[in-house]
Amino acid sequence: MSIEPAELTDLRRRAREISDLTGIGGLLLWDQNTMMPPGGAGARADQFEALERIQHDRLTDPGLEKLLDALEPWAASADPDSDDACLIRVLRRDHHKAVQVPTELAAEISSAAAHAQQSWLEAREKGDFGHFAPALERVLELQARYIACFDGTGEFAHPYDILLDDYEPGLTTEELSGIFARLQSELVPLVSAAAAAGEDGHVFPGHFPREAQQRMADELLHAVGFETEHWRLDPSVHPFARSMAATDVRLTTRWEEHDLAMAFYSCLHEFGHGLYEAQFEPRHYRTTLAEATGLGVHESQSRLWENLVGRSRPFSEWVLPLLRRNLGGAFETMDTASMYRAVNQVRLSLIRIEADETTYNLHIALRFELEVAMVEGRLTVADLPEAWNEATHRLLGLETPSVMEGVLQDIHWGAGMIGYFPTYTIGNLMAAELWRALSDDLPDIDGQIAAGDFAPLREWLRANIHRHGRKYDSRELLRRATGEELSVEPWLGYLEGKLLDAGLLTAPVRVPRS
Amino acid sequence: MSIEPAELTDLRRRAREISDLTGIGGLLLWDQNTMMPPGGAGARADQFEALERIQHDRLTDPGLEKLLDALEPWAASADPDSDDACLIRVLRRDHHKAVQVPTELAAEISSAAAHAQQSWLEAREKGDFGHFAPALERVLELQARYIACFDGTGEFAHPYDILLDDYEPGLTTEELSGIFARLQSELVPLVSAAAAAGEDGHVFPGHFPREAQQRMADELLHAVGFETEHWRLDPSVHPFARSMAATDVRLTTRWEEHDLAMAFYSCLHEFGHGLYEAQFEPRHYRTTLAEATGLGVHESQSRLWENLVGRSRPFSEWVLPLLRRNLGGAFETMDTASMYRAVNQVRLSLIRIEADETTYNLHIALRFELEVAMVEGRLTVADLPEAWNEATHRLLGLETPSVMEGVLQDIHWGAGMIGYFPTYTIGNLMAAELWRALSDDLPDIDGQIAAGDFAPLREWLRANIHRHGRKYDSRELLRRATGEELSVEPWLGYLEGKLLDAGLLTAPVRVPRS
Repeated sequence: MSIEPAELTDLRRRAREISDLTGIGGLLLWDQNTMMPPGGAGARADQFEALERIQHDRLTDPGLEKLLDALEPWAASADPDSDDACLIRVLRRDHHKAVQVPTELAAEISSAAAHAQQSWLEAREKGDFGHFAPALERVLELQARYIACFDGTGEFAHPYDILLDDYEPGLTTEELSGIFARLQSELVPLVSAAAAAGEDGHVFPGHFPREAQQRMADELLHAVGFETEHWRLDPSVHPFARSMAATDVRLTTRWEEHDLAMAFYSCLHEFGHGLYEAQFEPRHYRTTLAEATGLGVHESQSRLWENLVGRSRPFSEWVLPLLRRNLGGAFETMDTASMYRAVNQVRLSLIRIEADETTYNLHIALRFELEVAMVEGRLTVADLPEAWNEATHRLLGLETPSVMEGVLQDIHWGAGMIGYFPTYTIGNLMAAELWRALSDDLPDIDGQIAAGDFAPLREWLRANIHRHGRKYDSRELLRRATGEELSVEPWLGYLEGKLLDAGLLTAPVRVPRS
Repeated sequence: MSIEPAELTDLRRRAREISDLTGIGGLLLWDQNTMMPPGGAGARADQFEALERIQHDRLTDPGLEKLLDALEPWAASADPDSDDACLIRVLRRDHHKAVQVPTELAAEISSAAAHAQQSWLEAREKGDFGHFAPALERVLELQARYIACFDGTGEFAHPYDILLDDYEPGLTTEELSGIFARLQSELVPLVSAAAAAGEDGHVFPGHFPREAQQRMADELLHAVGFETEHWRLDPSVHPFARSMAATDVRLTTRWEEHDLAMAFYSCLHEFGHGLYEAQFEPRHYRTTLAEATGLGVHESQSRLWENLVGRSRPFSEWVLPLLRRNLGGAFETMDTASMYRAVNQVRLSLIRIEADETTYNLHIALRFELEVAMVEGRLTVADLPEAWNEATHRLLGLETPSVMEGVLQDIHWGAGMIGYFPTYTIGNLMAAELWRALSDDLPDIDGQIAAGDFAPLREWLRANIHRHGRKYDSRELLRRATGEELSVEPWLGYLEGKLLDAGLLTAPVRVPRS
């Protein structure tokens, strides 16, 4: 065992402060979207700006660089998987990215995002894209200045890669172009074959009073692993999850009395996010290792619970009595097979977060296309609604009747998050790969889910994914958990298998590639 | 007009950051007491500590001292009432106090308070003072170290003065001893004469469902000046008010179905606090002037709305129909005179926040006595419950049946706030003085209140008190608003007058002093 250098104590102290500030930032964001009176938005933007300024100063501090330099020789000889070696690597990366960007710009980006988020909320209330446009223009202008900061590094082949790298390190426009091209070409025949057999309308027909939905969500979440001691659930316009620490995890959902699927699936989705952050290794608390290694992995966890668990046959079997108990109605006469079929129906639709599993990635392809066009300067904010509608027609075959069902449906751009959407697709692909691996380790996973025993699954995810936090990058984490590289094939194979199993496809459509 | 020195820009930038951090701290505290899952307490304590460390570093920064020194000659020649001169004075004070205290100690105090607050909540659930005792011992030990930091300054005559000065600058143990001695000697005959005529039991007899109370509180608060755009109301164990900015004001209350007075009066009380912070001068936003000048003034605002408005005859007249509309029951047959009498009944009771206006200051006298004894080292935490019970017997003539109705009733010591309680009494005294002055300026104040028109009162408070923030210290503010010094007489005169008016005293008891 090599002797621990004195600089490590100082490095850990710095990591502790950065981690505490990140937790505080989480609270500011959660509160803004759940509790804050609308008139508090201006002050909240200022508070975000102040926090970002401090956070950025900490990361760019020359003292941090000196420490990292001094620790380099020690790290080179230390076990590369040790916590300290990983902490050094992660802080080196964060420092390296932060120093490219002036504090003033980082603060402006943070404040502009908070303002734009509020504009988006107001624009939705008015149903008016024009109300949101100036704030989005400001976000894009600042993103362009942010991208320009990395000009000299020679690390990125495409300007959009710089944004992607913040959400999913190492992900590139080129890789994504290939993934989306493949997905689109494979999905077109699949969708047209399956959609023919699909039904119209909501997944769960009927009117479900909010109180009954809340009781249902409460029972559902507690069954999968939500603990009152450490979690909470609140309503918000756009469902999300955020933790202030592994011991303080907040989920949100949206109660739609005519669309039970909104709360049902968003609760499972956000639970998957929450569980990732709740199961970080406790000894990483107050270090920068207790964070998600990338948002692709984060979304793999949410989509895994939403789809690979929540839209499976054994889950349908287990959850039906729970739905009957809390909601009655249509569930009294529904059986497992018809529920399984209903929740996997393929239907081209306008709203991403309501989309079925099959067509979901087409919604992401659309956003990827528009984001790249905006970043390349080929698409202006003024032309965005029309471009959105055109792409919706081209990719989904649908007309967009209003901005609420079109360009104003997602909070992300309003929150300054450009380059985030592709992580949903990466997450879908990873989730299918993880499921293959965990099914090998847990041969009775279907039986366990049907019995409502989610503990083995939670534990597998903890041991293989969650606890590591940022110790390994996404690809390395995937490799360790599955032995595989990121690939489209497992997801396509899983999807077709399920559509066949549910009776939504009568015969295979795809020619599997290996 | 003197030319503005360049250093002012830097000073304002620093004030902006300190102010933003204060707003963030407000959110952490509000969330901890309203929304946070209990298991998040440990991480919250760490976040408080991190924030306090940054805040303290900012205030003690030698760069700030240099700036203040450089600005001194300019400030000496500037209008002393100008914003900039006041900002320099206020920052000088904050810097001077902060540099006495090592950052490490400030951080420890902040973390210990967050932990102790959680211990207090848990101890209340268990009804066990022993569960809270170690956390309180830690708080006291840190307070002793804090007090020792000021040993060398020669600015304080008594160690307790150092704590008082943090809540109400300039307030001393000596002045308070005089005030409480006078109050006790005057209140004894008043209480015994009035309590003889008082009734027993709750102010508003009956059972009031929570939902009905919420509707009542909603209507009541909106009538006095609560705006949904900028305010919110939530439940908490101990009612409090906190703002993140003048545009984001949060109140809490407690719903007790068998004790309507709890929500009714705590809403008015916390509204008074909230309105102070909502009416800070907008141009002081993001400066250290947009803060309360002292907690005595803060409490004068809460006690003014709770008592001088909320327990007045015209308010009873106005509010009765509102109570009938929302709560029916006993209010159907109650008339203004009987309500006015009921809400002013004098009854020696155990719980401070449920105490009537007459006996309230005796509860504060008790806490003042115990705090001074603890600070002087004459009273240990182990002996505190017994000392509490003894003082309750001596001052209020009552036995204390449980720690919940005794030493565990208030959150303050758990939140690290020792030296805070006396500000309630200072607030009571100031409120009576302010009322005399505002009654001169608003001769129809009674008619306005009876008609539910609270705008003139809000505006008087805004113009004379709220907008100034920290521009003037409490005594100067009181002088400007009333032309008077702090005094016990106006409150005693007001109180006796009201008890006579309500028929709770049949003849004057006191011999007024001028």
